Amino acid sequence: MSNPITNRPGFVSKALRAPKMPAFTLYGSRGSTNTDRVRLTLAEGGFTDYEFVLLNLQKGEQKVSPSRELPNLNNINNPTQSPSNLTRHPFGKIPAITFPSGFTLYESRAICTYLARKYSFPLLPPSPATGIEHDLEATALFDQAQSVETHYFAEPAGKISFELFAKKFMGLPADKAVVAQALKAVEGFFDVAERMLQEREYMAGREFTVVDVFYIPLVQRLFACGYGDVIQSRGAVNAWWERCVNRPAIRKMLAEDGGVAVAAAAAKRV
Amino acid sequence: MSNPITNRPGFVSKALRAPKMPAFTLYGSRGSTNTDRVRLTLAEGGFTDYEFVLLNLQKGEQKVSPSRELPNLNNINNPTQSPSNLTRHPFGKIPAITFPSGFTLYESRAICTYLARKYSFPLLPPSPATGIEHDLEATALFDQAQSVETHYFAEPAGKISFELFAKKFMGLPADKAVVAQALKAVEGFFDVAERMLQEREYMAGREFTVVDVFYIPLVQRLFACGYGDVIQSRGAVNAWWERCVNRPAIRKMLAEDGGVAVAAAAAKRV
Repeated sequence: MSNPITNRPGFVSKALRAPKMPAFTLYGSRGSTNTDRVRLTLAEGGFTDYEFVLLNLQKGEQKVSPSRELPNLNNINNPTQSPSNLTRHPFGKIPAITFPSGFTLYESRAICTYLARKYSFPLLPPSPATGIEHDLEATALFDQAQSVETHYFAEPAGKISFELFAKKFMGLPADKAVVAQALKAVEGFFDVAERMLQEREYMAGREFTVVDVFYIPLVQRLFACGYGDVIQSRGAVNAWWERCVNRPAIRKMLAEDGGVAVAAAAAKRV
Repeated sequence: MSNPITNRPGFVSKALRAPKMPAFTLYGSRGSTNTDRVRLTLAEGGFTDYEFVLLNLQKGEQKVSPSRELPNLNNINNPTQSPSNLTRHPFGKIPAITFPSGFTLYESRAICTYLARKYSFPLLPPSPATGIEHDLEATALFDQAQSVETHYFAEPAGKISFELFAKKFMGLPADKAVVAQALKAVEGFFDVAERMLQEREYMAGREFTVVDVFYIPLVQRLFACGYGDVIQSRGAVNAWWERCVNRPAIRKMLAEDGGVAVAAAAAKRV
């Protein structure tokens, strides 16, 4: 909980009874690529002044009112009773963030962009509100890059993750035909990305942005599912990936999560 | 070609040889919900100073260099030779827009947002660049609403459209299991939307925005596929839909396109 770099709505009034009140609460889950998108954005911003509440998806805590939400990894001020996740996320999913002011936001990419803008993480293009044509165009190309990630990459990569990763936890067999079709789409995407990344260093241009962050959890999942060659067999794509995962904050978080995953797997084997 | 409300990059220098040079060219297709998203945005903005070039998807013109791109519905200055669509859209899809300055953009939602911002169509939330917390939050909720449309509505609704509409043109049978599963997801989405629309008039808040525009083509397609009851059986959703399609610009475009569709169907029967 070091180095808070935030203004905190409600901090002054709440300080008397909760001196360590964090800036906001992130509701998510371990192993959730959507949650990890937000955590990676916060890591890149060097922002630690938040509370991370884990919901147990296997118990369906994202869809109902949990009587208990534990553990809280970042803060001891953990709510033992909290409102239903459906009041935070009407579609019953994760992640969502809530502020002491009551402001609540869901959808991982919207959360990342909001946090980057609010706390001035250097992960966004210049604002279009200047009215300068160059900035309007830069923002439009950034929106385009976000749409590409969502439609051409995350959609099929998410299917692979669901079939080979999520279904394992649900005790269901993977649909191999779905995996094969999705893998073909992911490969087609990276064929185009390979050409794009020969002309620019990152997915939305010359700078590392939240759009690159958006890719990281599902690319990691592809590696975990045994499809790392999709990345490693393409020179420019692989160089981009290396640039991403060699960023200190990203590397640190992935290493820590890898440690957690290994420990969890070891615990299961006992 | 009346009422151009634009600044036109390159207009002065090109005016000598092309006095009617439009502000930009939209490459798309009839019956393409992605193209219609852009056309509806332009219709709402009352903007007609653009050239609309139709690509023949059945001939694969979106993926290769077409020798001929006809017809041009909005302007007689039609290029008889043009670069490959792949130079405009590296994923070989539509729509894309190009400006005389060379600026090119693809992904329908990014195009709509860019055009609304560039030409000041009243379809966007206040800009977050003011730094005012309220505007930051308004923009975040707008981003959230866009993400909801993409992930919870367009993804399954697009599958229904592909199975029951696109596949017909490809001479392929619909996969009924895919349709049934997607329909269930669309119904689940509108169950949540029903509660949301009891508290606000439009998908992103109290005002009609591009997010509502984003829904229109695929909702229309659901009606065309015989699933209009998904809308009409839900009071608040149906009231929202009525508000959308009763907007003069939307009503006019849908009526015109309906006329084209009827004429095309009649021509096929001859």
